[in-house]
Amino acid sequence: MSAKAWGGAFSEATDPRVELFTESISFDARLALVDIRGSQAHAKMLAKVGLLTNEEAQQIIDHLNEIGQQITRGEFEWKTELEDIHMHIETALIARIGDVGRKLHTGRSRNDQVSLDLKLYVREALQRIDEALEDLQRAFVDRYEQDREIILPGYTHLQRAQPVMAAHYWLAYCEKFQRDRDRLRDCSKRLNVLPLGAAALAGTSLPIDREETARLLNFTDVAANSLDVSSDRDFLAEAIFSMSLIAVHLSGWAEEWILWCTTEFGFLKLPDAYTTGSSIMPQKRNPDVLELIRGKSARVIADVQQILTLLKGLPLAYNRDLQEDKLAFFDAFDTISACLELAPSIVRLAKLRADKINARLEEGFLDATTLMEYLIQHGVPMRTGHEVVGHLVRLCESRGITLAEMPLADFQAVNPLIADDVYGWLGVKNVVAKLQSYGSGGINCIEEQVEEWRTRLRTEG
Amino acid sequence: MSAKAWGGAFSEATDPRVELFTESISFDARLALVDIRGSQAHAKMLAKVGLLTNEEAQQIIDHLNEIGQQITRGEFEWKTELEDIHMHIETALIARIGDVGRKLHTGRSRNDQVSLDLKLYVREALQRIDEALEDLQRAFVDRYEQDREIILPGYTHLQRAQPVMAAHYWLAYCEKFQRDRDRLRDCSKRLNVLPLGAAALAGTSLPIDREETARLLNFTDVAANSLDVSSDRDFLAEAIFSMSLIAVHLSGWAEEWILWCTTEFGFLKLPDAYTTGSSIMPQKRNPDVLELIRGKSARVIADVQQILTLLKGLPLAYNRDLQEDKLAFFDAFDTISACLELAPSIVRLAKLRADKINARLEEGFLDATTLMEYLIQHGVPMRTGHEVVGHLVRLCESRGITLAEMPLADFQAVNPLIADDVYGWLGVKNVVAKLQSYGSGGINCIEEQVEEWRTRLRTEG
Amino acid sequence: MSAKAWGGAFSEATDPRVELFTESISFDARLALVDIRGSQAHAKMLAKVGLLTNEEAQQIIDHLNEIGQQITRGEFEWKTELEDIHMHIETALIARIGDVGRKLHTGRSRNDQVSLDLKLYVREALQRIDEALEDLQRAFVDRYEQDREIILPGYTHLQRAQPVMAAHYWLAYCEKFQRDRDRLRDCSKRLNVLPLGAAALAGTSLPIDREETARLLNFTDVAANSLDVSSDRDFLAEAIFSMSLIAVHLSGWAEEWILWCTTEFGFLKLPDAYTTGSSIMPQKRNPDVLELIRGKSARVIADVQQILTLLKGLPLAYNRDLQEDKLAFFDAFDTISACLELAPSIVRLAKLRADKINARLEEGFLDATTLMEYLIQHGVPMRTGHEVVGHLVRLCESRGITLAEMPLADFQAVNPLIADDVYGWLGVKNVVAKLQSYGSGGINCIEEQVEEWRTRLRTEG
Amino acid sequence: MSAKAWGGAFSEATDPRVELFTESISFDARLALVDIRGSQAHAKMLAKVGLLTNEEAQQIIDHLNEIGQQITRGEFEWKTELEDIHMHIETALIARIGDVGRKLHTGRSRNDQVSLDLKLYVREALQRIDEALEDLQRAFVDRYEQDREIILPGYTHLQRAQPVMAAHYWLAYCEKFQRDRDRLRDCSKRLNVLPLGAAALAGTSLPIDREETARLLNFTDVAANSLDVSSDRDFLAEAIFSMSLIAVHLSGWAEEWILWCTTEFGFLKLPDAYTTGSSIMPQKRNPDVLELIRGKSARVIADVQQILTLLKGLPLAYNRDLQEDKLAFFDAFDTISACLELAPSIVRLAKLRADKINARLEEGFLDATTLMEYLIQHGVPMRTGHEVVGHLVRLCESRGITLAEMPLADFQAVNPLIADDVYGWLGVKNVVAKLQSYGSGGINCIEEQVEEWRTRLRTEG
Repeated sequence: MSAKAWGGAFSEATDPRVELFTESISFDARLALVDIRGSQAHAKMLAKVGLLTNEEAQQIIDHLNEIGQQITRGEFEWKTELEDIHMHIETALIARIGDVGRKLHTGRSRNDQVSLDLKLYVREALQRIDEALEDLQRAFVDRYEQDREIILPGYTHLQRAQPVMAAHYWLAYCEKFQRDRDRLRDCSKRLNVLPLGAAALAGTSLPIDREETARLLNFTDVAANSLDVSSDRDFLAEAIFSMSLIAVHLSGWAEEWILWCTTEFGFLKLPDAYTTGSSIMPQKRNPDVLELIRGKSARVIADVQQILTLLKGLPLAYNRDLQEDKLAFFDAFDTISACLELAPSIVRLAKLRADKINARLEEGFLDATTLMEYLIQHGVPMRTGHEVVGHLVRLCESRGITLAEMPLADFQAVNPLIADDVYGWLGVKNVVAKLQSYGSGGINCIEEQVEEWRTRLRTEG
Repeated sequence: MSAKAWGGAFSEATDPRVELFTESISFDARLALVDIRGSQAHAKMLAKVGLLTNEEAQQIIDHLNEIGQQITRGEFEWKTELEDIHMHIETALIARIGDVGRKLHTGRSRNDQVSLDLKLYVREALQRIDEALEDLQRAFVDRYEQDREIILPGYTHLQRAQPVMAAHYWLAYCEKFQRDRDRLRDCSKRLNVLPLGAAALAGTSLPIDREETARLLNFTDVAANSLDVSSDRDFLAEAIFSMSLIAVHLSGWAEEWILWCTTEFGFLKLPDAYTTGSSIMPQKRNPDVLELIRGKSARVIADVQQILTLLKGLPLAYNRDLQEDKLAFFDAFDTISACLELAPSIVRLAKLRADKINARLEEGFLDATTLMEYLIQHGVPMRTGHEVVGHLVRLCESRGITLAEMPLADFQAVNPLIADDVYGWLGVKNVVAKLQSYGSGGINCIEEQVEEWRTRLRTEG
Repeated sequence: MSAKAWGGAFSEATDPRVELFTESISFDARLALVDIRGSQAHAKMLAKVGLLTNEEAQQIIDHLNEIGQQITRGEFEWKTELEDIHMHIETALIARIGDVGRKLHTGRSRNDQVSLDLKLYVREALQRIDEALEDLQRAFVDRYEQDREIILPGYTHLQRAQPVMAAHYWLAYCEKFQRDRDRLRDCSKRLNVLPLGAAALAGTSLPIDREETARLLNFTDVAANSLDVSSDRDFLAEAIFSMSLIAVHLSGWAEEWILWCTTEFGFLKLPDAYTTGSSIMPQKRNPDVLELIRGKSARVIADVQQILTLLKGLPLAYNRDLQEDKLAFFDAFDTISACLELAPSIVRLAKLRADKINARLEEGFLDATTLMEYLIQHGVPMRTGHEVVGHLVRLCESRGITLAEMPLADFQAVNPLIADDVYGWLGVKNVVAKLQSYGSGGINCIEEQVEEWRTRLRTEG
Repeated sequence: MSAKAWGGAFSEATDPRVELFTESISFDARLALVDIRGSQAHAKMLAKVGLLTNEEAQQIIDHLNEIGQQITRGEFEWKTELEDIHMHIETALIARIGDVGRKLHTGRSRNDQVSLDLKLYVREALQRIDEALEDLQRAFVDRYEQDREIILPGYTHLQRAQPVMAAHYWLAYCEKFQRDRDRLRDCSKRLNVLPLGAAALAGTSLPIDREETARLLNFTDVAANSLDVSSDRDFLAEAIFSMSLIAVHLSGWAEEWILWCTTEFGFLKLPDAYTTGSSIMPQKRNPDVLELIRGKSARVIADVQQILTLLKGLPLAYNRDLQEDKLAFFDAFDTISACLELAPSIVRLAKLRADKINARLEEGFLDATTLMEYLIQHGVPMRTGHEVVGHLVRLCESRGITLAEMPLADFQAVNPLIADDVYGWLGVKNVVAKLQSYGSGGINCIEEQVEEWRTRLRTEG
């Protein structure tokens, strides 16, 4: 009982099973270094306003440093009865420096302290995810040279639709991950608002200087309402949601490449080092990493649900339910980090199989839309052109030929505006040469886009 | 069959049950006006680049205006076999102006068209939610005068913790809704990127000018990758998530006020016009609106789940699954809008019951923390002060008195540093006068904060 | 105000926006007929115990019948201010028969009434889903004749693994839907417990006979605790969850067939009547129905989230949040019903393309596992056999041949136990002839299984 | 590479980061003992059909026993590169007994093996949860004696509604947990279907006897389709869902008791051993365990989402995504187990505070409904009675009295049917004596119900 920071008014010891049930040290120990950083800033501020002497503050800072090193070296002992990371570190400090240590918690409570720790931790976590995303973008852009000549079918409804340069796929994912990075950045704006000093829920009668703490910890703003601080986990929900969209993007990419690795598609070969085998079927090479990336997205999506469901219907201010918030965040962060660590290598090492791709590239009338646009250019209204080409496709299907194999006379029988130059619009190579709108999958657009991406990623890196 | 825009290559009519299953007109009809706005901008752009004459463009614009008015007046006939809003409007246009109408769909597909419509719709929807949130903030701030003198218990773990000014509660919710508004604004940045011109998935060989369309529709940027556009629903997921946090904030407020309306708390009285009765129990006055607001948050949370689960594992580019995206968004938007329409009135009309609140305000040792801070100011280390006050609280409990009722001698017996001025720190009135940190619930802080909010809301309004 | 059944203690009229916000008639009108059925049983019971005369009961029953017919004919007027279906029907009854109508609500409240209505409705709904599932199973089993000769690759990790008879796929889905049906049946056990008579939350002092009502409505049991009844929505959560697993099963089947419809797989052709085209690409035939079935599964999954999140953290007994429960159920039910209405036709009308399937059937070493089992039968330990075959597969790959094309000498060079009869184990036809374990995809097992399914479905139908 | 069971066809070693990413041993190690049990049954069956000699089978069984003991003693070394529990145990077996060990995996694959392990594990897990639920029911029922005299307000909309005996609350939770137990039992029916022998996805050509394995492992049935087995995780989804409803029930109970522990309600006192304090506020006693139980329900709800989202859209048969299934189950099971371990003690040790409860028990017109029923008994139509009592309540409110304090003359002025005996229906004590319907909260019903529960729990225990 005496171990508890709050034992004063209690006449009965805590049931050890309750300690086990309520402890968070098994998962919040990873907040140790940010907790120390926050406490050091707090101590400096307390000294500035005279609630500590400079010597006391320095003593606290030094010993916290040592405790931090102890933790980093794995020499710190965790005890369930000390509940959480805050109590562990404060208790260790008091064990070292007695009454001076007993002063550290002046003008704060664990409610604002844990909010601070989380914000510091999440800020760094999002920074690391941002870097991983950039690395992944780089991996996609770097494929440009090796896939330079490769044209792929583009799909809608998983049906072959129109051809695009292979790199058009790579850049599509770069765009998605760029939005993810932008969202992380927006998220940071709300992270960078200092909660410390809200104390339990009402602020304090002590003359603390929250602006100073914010300055020391690189926060851009100070939270303006202590009831809000004590209950606010928006920043976690937003961070987890941002990660869930990253997970969704990764899952789509994984699905696509799993398809491309099938015997049937045959577009892609993963290196043996990134596939695994079967315990029973000797011939198997399975894209397990991609499957797990797809599967793991479900966890991150569920983490969004956990945090939102957790927060729903809680009155002001702090409720102990909030302790579970960390589990959702850590789970999402660890999952996304693991996926993002492997993804760039897979992107870099996978090989497109040009032979397999090209062997069937003219299947599926990928040039039908361009033929329709040829007609539009010759004055045929779009809807009419659409019908004309639909008719031509059926003709080809019945004869088992491609549009490019259709004789000119047959074209002209259907629509006399079609001239000999039509063959310059047919076949996938011609199509990707013709595609010209900004953002299209045509050869010229892709080149420009790759250049832009290179510049952007160079500048950022 | 002939009704279909895409019937050309088909030899068999669609099963009517399939039409019913795949139609979206029953819910995307609400996109009618943004669809028209988008088509008009598209037509202007086509004229600029010469794919339409100016006369053709004007004819299209005028007739679309008329169709829009017809829809607004409820005189437009919806037909399941025309599938979606895009086909309805284009078909009506062609019925009016024939071949010129057939040219409208030049250089675009329904894939980029629906993305455009959604972005236009969501942009306006978020704008409306933002205004509703501002109105709700105003309602909270406006309570300041009437609740000026009222002190409320602040809670953690739903246990009485420290006293705060009533308005501190109101401003806590203002902070939460302000973050919501900031998130909506961030969301808009990604909404304001033009998808149109991505066509089906590959862009087009036609010389369209996407910058021009963006300019006409007030978009700040043009989407750079057509595969991405065709598959991207990030903006919907992000908008729905933003609404889910609004729902969570509303649910917490509703929960709190439901508690406050109980016989046991008795803090709050809702006007009869905002409560309902029981079909069996004649005495009941139920806070149904608040309960439904709390309950409805579950829907919006589930909408986040729907959109993320929907998107998970879809390969590039457009897949028909995406049609279901609108249901999630409309559901979330309608739910949040309905809640936000009623919430300000409830906030404005509910009455705090000062008599009931004050009758028990000194229960729960709300001044214990301030007493501890008194000790800290007198040099007692915080942890020691915490223990001392814990001990004093137990003493009071055993005697059935408040801290303010404790004789000085008894205080001094426990800690001789306590002097006669301690009584100026005890009792909730003294506490809220002493609370001074920025963001605290003390009387002075609240006054400043209210002033800031008034300025902010005045400026914005 | 006078319209309200509960207006007695109120001094102020309800805000019309509150009526709009709290009404449920827009979605609970579909409970009309079960509400009437429940009220009729209730009236009979009231007569039995003497709270109504027999004449009164009969009058109520007759007029409720007429009201039901009015509703069925679409001649009943719905009014927002009458809130819900219960008030509409009772009000109409009172309008017809005055004081006798005023007696119907004796000994019940809307809390147990709505629970009864829901249980009656859900009971029928699950029955209909069960029938639809059986129809779908029948459609799969009925494919047996037409696909009798067709062997398909079986996949794990979407990599070709071992061959199975086509019907093995069909029966796999039958198994899944059978479990779904079993779950629905289990669900019914908890549906068939009568809530009526719990009244508001505490039961009643009136001498009602709940056993009698249960008997009249075909319930097998009477709920034993009124607080529980008033708050219980387990049966809805369970029904929605059961539907979510159906949705998941449908989504997997849809995914598979979408893959099979690609140019790359080419296994399956959907009839034109079940595909749709593109507004821009004239050649497209898209499996939209399957995509929507896959996409719609996200809604049903989200409905599970909604109901669980809704229920979380609600104290006893009835809370108005529960009104939202119906939305989750109706949404799930309508979605699943729509999918199950179309699925059997798709199953029946889709054609396997034997030519395309067979053309590549020997790709992917589908016989490797059987070769390993051949070695096991010759005394080679399984793990050793696995390595041997792995080695042989690599050899084949390097030479570009299948295992069946490997000369015997080469087999024997690797393992001398391999004899000439090995060729009877190689090639997919041999493999499906050899597969013999119960539940396997081999030709004989399938035949037996199909027979069993036919019997089972015949008996049930 | 040589460590891999499937390395035969591979020319490149696995990237160690891939091993780390794809390993499951960090969480599936807890399947060790069921994996061994399953393998032993498998070996016995192999001996029965002659694929092993009896000596080989016995050797395998004995060494697996020893390996199991090694694991139980914590002396077994886990290695990431051995991927999962199956490979660890098989590798250890081969290290001990060479070629005999290499034969164990005959006629099975990890796909059916892991399904077996999971079913065995889940079967035991649900059994343990069932026992914990029974213990919790017992704790509620055991409160009957101590709370025998206590009447509590029953609530709807959290507004005081009607009085019920305290034990009526306890039994309401017993009912909910009984349905949970019934669901677990239903779940078991589908668990008890043997997957083993489905092998990878197609069954096997070896003469295995699955009925025998089922018999040895106490399964009641054998799964009939190998493709289904390889992909089926219904049993996990169903088990997790069943736990989510338990979580929801616990969350409602927790919410209720958190409310009852407030200063405002004051109904309940938790023992100090089950509350915790504040690091800053010396007077606090927080119901943290209840709050965490409420909060943890969000995790279990999210686990349902994870498994459903994971399974959505996966084609047949096994996909590696499924590996993530265990995380959802273990998380839900651990969470529920932890909550159920503490809940009975809290139920047993909490004290109702009769003084506080009784002090305000006559507030809120808890007898209004019974008064209405008094009128009904005197022939007043229910709706009329409702209005009359509504009017009387307003009268009382305006005078600040209870119904029991209303003079007879005033009653009769409103309705002359009211006689002197009305006072026997007013006041909460009279009400609970009058409540008589089956399942009501009246004193007699409760007594009977408690007796039934005692019998039921005695018989089961």
